[in-house]
Amino acid sequence: MDTFLTLILDKNMAAINVTKASGEQEPYDESKLRRSLASAGAEKQLIDKIAGAVSDMLYDGISTQKIYKEAFRLLRQLSDRSAGRYKLKEAILELGPTGYPFEKFVGELLNRLGYTTQTGVIVEGNCVSHEIDVIAEKDNKHFMIECKFHNRKGHKCNVKIPLYIQSRFKDVEKNWSTQPGHRNKRHRGWVVTNTRFTEDALQYGTCAGLKLLSWDYPKHEGLKDLISEVNLHPITCLSTLHKEEKQFLLEQNVVFCMQLCEDHKILDPLGLDNRQQNKVLKEARAICNYNTIEQ
Amino acid sequence: MDTFLTLILDKNMAAINVTKASGEQEPYDESKLRRSLASAGAEKQLIDKIAGAVSDMLYDGISTQKIYKEAFRLLRQLSDRSAGRYKLKEAILELGPTGYPFEKFVGELLNRLGYTTQTGVIVEGNCVSHEIDVIAEKDNKHFMIECKFHNRKGHKCNVKIPLYIQSRFKDVEKNWSTQPGHRNKRHRGWVVTNTRFTEDALQYGTCAGLKLLSWDYPKHEGLKDLISEVNLHPITCLSTLHKEEKQFLLEQNVVFCMQLCEDHKILDPLGLDNRQQNKVLKEARAICNYNTIEQ
Repeated sequence: MDTFLTLILDKNMAAINVTKASGEQEPYDESKLRRSLASAGAEKQLIDKIAGAVSDMLYDGISTQKIYKEAFRLLRQLSDRSAGRYKLKEAILELGPTGYPFEKFVGELLNRLGYTTQTGVIVEGNCVSHEIDVIAEKDNKHFMIECKFHNRKGHKCNVKIPLYIQSRFKDVEKNWSTQPGHRNKRHRGWVVTNTRFTEDALQYGTCAGLKLLSWDYPKHEGLKDLISEVNLHPITCLSTLHKEEKQFLLEQNVVFCMQLCEDHKILDPLGLDNRQQNKVLKEARAICNYNTIEQ
Repeated sequence: MDTFLTLILDKNMAAINVTKASGEQEPYDESKLRRSLASAGAEKQLIDKIAGAVSDMLYDGISTQKIYKEAFRLLRQLSDRSAGRYKLKEAILELGPTGYPFEKFVGELLNRLGYTTQTGVIVEGNCVSHEIDVIAEKDNKHFMIECKFHNRKGHKCNVKIPLYIQSRFKDVEKNWSTQPGHRNKRHRGWVVTNTRFTEDALQYGTCAGLKLLSWDYPKHEGLKDLISEVNLHPITCLSTLHKEEKQFLLEQNVVFCMQLCEDHKILDPLGLDNRQQNKVLKEARAICNYNTIEQ
């Protein structure tokens, strides 16, 4: 490209601000979009194509939601697997507090990572009793986990959450530590959120010794990474089913794409025709890498 | 009264439920009204009269607000001083978060109890910094105070409040205790509210060693008792001024009835005529027992 033209374009690009879900504005950063697409499994060639198309549609003040929606639409045209994975964040939001509670989701995630879990248990502390979202055990590890589900992407967990969880944990730990068999257990309090933590929430929580798990924290071991690791993609990822169909399946405790891969008869009550059913199964298998496993 | 008639009346009375500010229903209990009137300084004869008039207007499901409004109206007819004191709870609500912040009110209260106070201070903790509503010191006592203002009477402070305040306090205490001169100080965390605590908030808070201060807790040493003790009745108690006039005075930092007693010129900007101004001063003096002190 002509150097002069590149300069003008660069200048124009630099002037474009995007509006985040929180309402804040920041300069458009293509590398973020590229990273998102890459972590959804898209290959370089595909990323170049989508990033180029997105840059053509940018205008000052455009919402990140609009950018990602368009990127997703393009991705979906080209790759079922990537599209399903890419939609993960929204798919968790769609599970929502009514469809399938987030704490059950987190419990299932830890199950698949080898923990024995219980959800929604009343536990006696030293001072008062507490309702604990998830209790997880493996070897000598014994975790008290609080789950914070937000149904808006921009909503962060502020410092008050780890502050009150720390007191809860200390109250429960004081009681646990007096019980038989707990002498060698490593007790730890966790806070898990489907969104993010504020800076001071991270600072306080880690300093106090809590385990913090958010959408992308800790780096490479965030919620999105763990979900991919254990193939726990929820059925709300699927673009081949309508919202009502997913809601119906959730009510039947069909929550994960993997369940469809393992037993496609689960889809029968939806009354789809063969072509439609195969499309759904193909997407589910692509999301879970199930084809590769079977072949 | 005829015994048969008394029985019928008693039976009717027992059937009457009142609706509390929280929405809960409970049987009407005249002794509560009597106690409120007594603590407002009303004498037995007056209490009998008001309780009798109130029982005539009762119907099933009547709100406690309606009962207390009527009782207050009657009390006001008969005693300026009692009426102003009786209205204290609402007067604090009227101060509100915009008129005069509750934390400044609590700071002033502790000042008058002999503490040196600071409000809205940023304090370094061990892990993060915290904005503390009130810091109060007297002798070797050093308090970190969090104020919870609710603008609805029925809204209680739940257990999450003392839980997160305890972690805050521990974080600040850890830092304070390393500072020079703090070795012999007695640090303590407080939670103060203008309403009430839930049962488990009280249970956790006291067990964890926090000082809890609510409208009527601890018994005989609650917020209402402390306010009476130091004559800190806010000008929103006055029934002889309009809401707008009170708001104007609040904006001029005229917050307490005592300020009017000490310098009646404070009222001048309101442009009241002599008769009206004297009525206001008379009520303020009655509320503060100022006449008795001067004479």
